[in-house]
Amino acid sequence: MSEAGFSILGIPGSLRAGSYNRALLRAAGEVLPPGVILDVFALDDIPMYNADVQAEGDPEPVSELKRRLAEADVVLIATPEYNYSIPGVLKNAIDWASRPPKICAFRKKPVGIIGASSGESGTMRGQLAIRQVFVFLDAYVMAQPELRVTNAGRRFDEKGVLIDEELRGRLQGYMVALIDWAHLVGRAPGA
Amino acid sequence: MSEAGFSILGIPGSLRAGSYNRALLRAAGEVLPPGVILDVFALDDIPMYNADVQAEGDPEPVSELKRRLAEADVVLIATPEYNYSIPGVLKNAIDWASRPPKICAFRKKPVGIIGASSGESGTMRGQLAIRQVFVFLDAYVMAQPELRVTNAGRRFDEKGVLIDEELRGRLQGYMVALIDWAHLVGRAPGA
Repeated sequence: MSEAGFSILGIPGSLRAGSYNRALLRAAGEVLPPGVILDVFALDDIPMYNADVQAEGDPEPVSELKRRLAEADVVLIATPEYNYSIPGVLKNAIDWASRPPKICAFRKKPVGIIGASSGESGTMRGQLAIRQVFVFLDAYVMAQPELRVTNAGRRFDEKGVLIDEELRGRLQGYMVALIDWAHLVGRAPGA
Repeated sequence: MSEAGFSILGIPGSLRAGSYNRALLRAAGEVLPPGVILDVFALDDIPMYNADVQAEGDPEPVSELKRRLAEADVVLIATPEYNYSIPGVLKNAIDWASRPPKICAFRKKPVGIIGASSGESGTMRGQLAIRQVFVFLDAYVMAQPELRVTNAGRRFDEKGVLIDEELRGRLQGYMVALIDWAHLVGRAPGA
């Protein structure tokens, strides 16, 4: 089946330039079926959520995030776990995108959640914390497969290039499953 | 027992000027035993967490937050629940304060968590999400009593003044319990 024009929006949960999760999204972009595009939206310019500010209108980076979310066929979040939970930076972006509730940018949007950590947990608690948030937002988060990347320091080189072929295979399988999931539950973007 | 010099640091989880949680902290400051002081640290100036920035040294607002946390006998977080979880703004501040791990500002710090919402949940899911974070950080979070303020729009007037005497009584009881908790588990600040 041709996937021409199918678009994935990757969102890294870390602002660190050398983030393993940014690297994981780059690697995901290299194992896609023909025609599928993965663009990354970094959260560096999203300000702190403040309802007083939002009442005056979304800041431009927030508008851009919402536009990119609306255009994507599926969203792929790749994030570290901070303190057993969602990085504040990522949660803050989700908070912005969720308002106002009636036009929440994540509503009925197919979503995948993956993550890489330097240790053994592979972001498992952080991923569960994000799933709890998306229950409220009624996003369509894929259940399985899960992808938790442990010991990331051994799987990427100093330039953030994926050097672990076993992980590359798992990541490729994950992306195929995520695209299938989007076809199963997704609507045309903006519909 | 005299509480002279006992200090509470209140942290509101919302940046909104008319926040019910800011109002709740103000009300908490009015029902304290003699000698106890509650200061509020607003999170407006805390930037987004970025490990690259932190490696260069904490930004001044983060240093100030850490200093205030170290000086306080107990921390009282009053926060809305955003999307079944912690507001990104608050989680981001906790992420900053938690680094570097060996001198995490919340470690063994007595903490209370309360929250107000305009609806019926009273922030119960958000409070649980914060407790999960503080498990990792080894903060001493008081278990009971809990304080969940539902229907906040009926309990505060337009100026954010607490007008519900039943809630005032519960809040007073909560503050007494929190001070007792701090005496039970707390160390001298900075010890």
